[in-house]
Amino acid sequence: MDKYLITGFSGFVSQHFIEYLSQQNTPCEILGVDINAPQFEWSNKKNIVCNFKYLNLLEKDEVTTVISDFKPNYILHLASYSSVASSWKNPVTSFVNNTNIFLNVVECVRLLEIDCRILSIGSSEEYGIVTTEDLPLVETKYPNPISPYAVARVSQEMLSEIYANSYNLNIVLTRSFNHIGPGQNDIFVVSSFAKKIIEIKKHISESNKIVVGNLNIIRDFLDVRDVVKAYYLLLKKGKKGEIYNICSGNGIKLKDVLLNMITIANIDATVEIDASLIRPADNAIIIGSNKKIQEHIGWENKINFTQSLEDILHFWDKKL
Amino acid sequence: MDKYLITGFSGFVSQHFIEYLSQQNTPCEILGVDINAPQFEWSNKKNIVCNFKYLNLLEKDEVTTVISDFKPNYILHLASYSSVASSWKNPVTSFVNNTNIFLNVVECVRLLEIDCRILSIGSSEEYGIVTTEDLPLVETKYPNPISPYAVARVSQEMLSEIYANSYNLNIVLTRSFNHIGPGQNDIFVVSSFAKKIIEIKKHISESNKIVVGNLNIIRDFLDVRDVVKAYYLLLKKGKKGEIYNICSGNGIKLKDVLLNMITIANIDATVEIDASLIRPADNAIIIGSNKKIQEHIGWENKINFTQSLEDILHFWDKKL
Repeated sequence: MDKYLITGFSGFVSQHFIEYLSQQNTPCEILGVDINAPQFEWSNKKNIVCNFKYLNLLEKDEVTTVISDFKPNYILHLASYSSVASSWKNPVTSFVNNTNIFLNVVECVRLLEIDCRILSIGSSEEYGIVTTEDLPLVETKYPNPISPYAVARVSQEMLSEIYANSYNLNIVLTRSFNHIGPGQNDIFVVSSFAKKIIEIKKHISESNKIVVGNLNIIRDFLDVRDVVKAYYLLLKKGKKGEIYNICSGNGIKLKDVLLNMITIANIDATVEIDASLIRPADNAIIIGSNKKIQEHIGWENKINFTQSLEDILHFWDKKL
Repeated sequence: MDKYLITGFSGFVSQHFIEYLSQQNTPCEILGVDINAPQFEWSNKKNIVCNFKYLNLLEKDEVTTVISDFKPNYILHLASYSSVASSWKNPVTSFVNNTNIFLNVVECVRLLEIDCRILSIGSSEEYGIVTTEDLPLVETKYPNPISPYAVARVSQEMLSEIYANSYNLNIVLTRSFNHIGPGQNDIFVVSSFAKKIIEIKKHISESNKIVVGNLNIIRDFLDVRDVVKAYYLLLKKGKKGEIYNICSGNGIKLKDVLLNMITIANIDATVEIDASLIRPADNAIIIGSNKKIQEHIGWENKINFTQSLEDILHFWDKKL
């Protein structure tokens, strides 16, 4: 029976990953680890024996104990301080809780000589500021990180390549583009828009004003349920040491995301720009190419963007 | 009076830097910090008021206290786990003691809003494997790190750029090529050759055999006394946010370094290759261009290579 160690278990992506695993009808065992308790139902999934354990990945000795006891076949390393905005405020916390936690995991696998495949999650933010000629971004494009978060992700990627190519660890790498979907924390922009819109709709909010940062950036958004399918297939069929973009191939302006959601929710709202929400540096446009992942493992995204927005609004509607 | 904070004070480069400062006839104050006590004379230098303090740069609160009390005008950040060979054995130690210590220093300067110039030391190892068409290496060439040490240095460089460009810290960056000279630890190749040669010459060694790793690699060696002059001039005149190669522009095969020293010392020796000393991955050739640093600050290297080798042998001759 396959054994999956999932770090960052209590986060947004994990709950969708175990949902996907459960649908595969192949019994498996999961050990989820996180510094926070999961806020979703995880103990009673079809085909899955799942346990949860509190673990701070900065505590190397504890990481060693957990990995040595569980002996996973797969490590899905989702743990990350993944907010770009927060990384500007807390650059050290961001760096340490991306790069150093990853380093502890792979070093432990190396020293224990555990035979397992590791998925190292990177980010489209690694590409940094690009020109329109660079679009769509392909994996051979050199990273040019411009935020503390992006630097941490590039560092993790460089370390992954050392561990895969020189220490011979079985690591597959991603550059995952902005993912959205039900259950995402509202420190992320699309989820925060949706929450605000539902607050207005339900008259929880005192005014119908939505305060925003830079709405002109273009991002390649992808539904988290498509993302977890890519993670599963990469764990099973990705090529060792290779980097894969996980993206839709389409760019959408943040302003259009907001207007779309306002239309779907059918509310009246005013939009106000708050200069303090504008970041010290930001990439104007990020659109990826998903040709490589399509060719190597046959993955493509299936959930259309409007469906994602409806589901996110529905999530907040139920929650608030 | 200018105040210099020197991290990694007890290392090889620092002693030459304070010697150089002492010769400038401009009174200044130095606070040297390190986890180890300096093994050289530092307290009685002309023109310099110098103090030493034990400090582990991983201890963020202590770093804050030291920087906030001393309020340096210049930080020469020499502290580094700088052996490529050791980084393969201890990748986590190497990473943390390069990247995380640097991050603690710059974050502290940012939060305390100390008005000081920081020299962030990088390495020619960042370039990684290059083709002959890439030579001589210029600063616009993208890093391609292939050792844990090199990854740490690229991470530090990326962080430096974020802190300089987005947080507006006054940071100048180097990519320093292999430096050699009297006083260097014998974990570094040229110093280890010299030590062994003097052991043979003085019959301290039982045999006349010198055990080596890969002698075919070509490196751009530079005398440490030229390096510290570059560091001084960059602190004074380098451009904020810019990266500077510090190199001779000449490549020398390691085999020739060894044979030259054997000739200078006038000994008989046999050379034996030990496969265990060959690294998992190594760059065959590294030669830099020093055009940029010449143009920006008028630095060029003055000490010829044979002189360096003679002085290194002399150092070990006195020491053993």
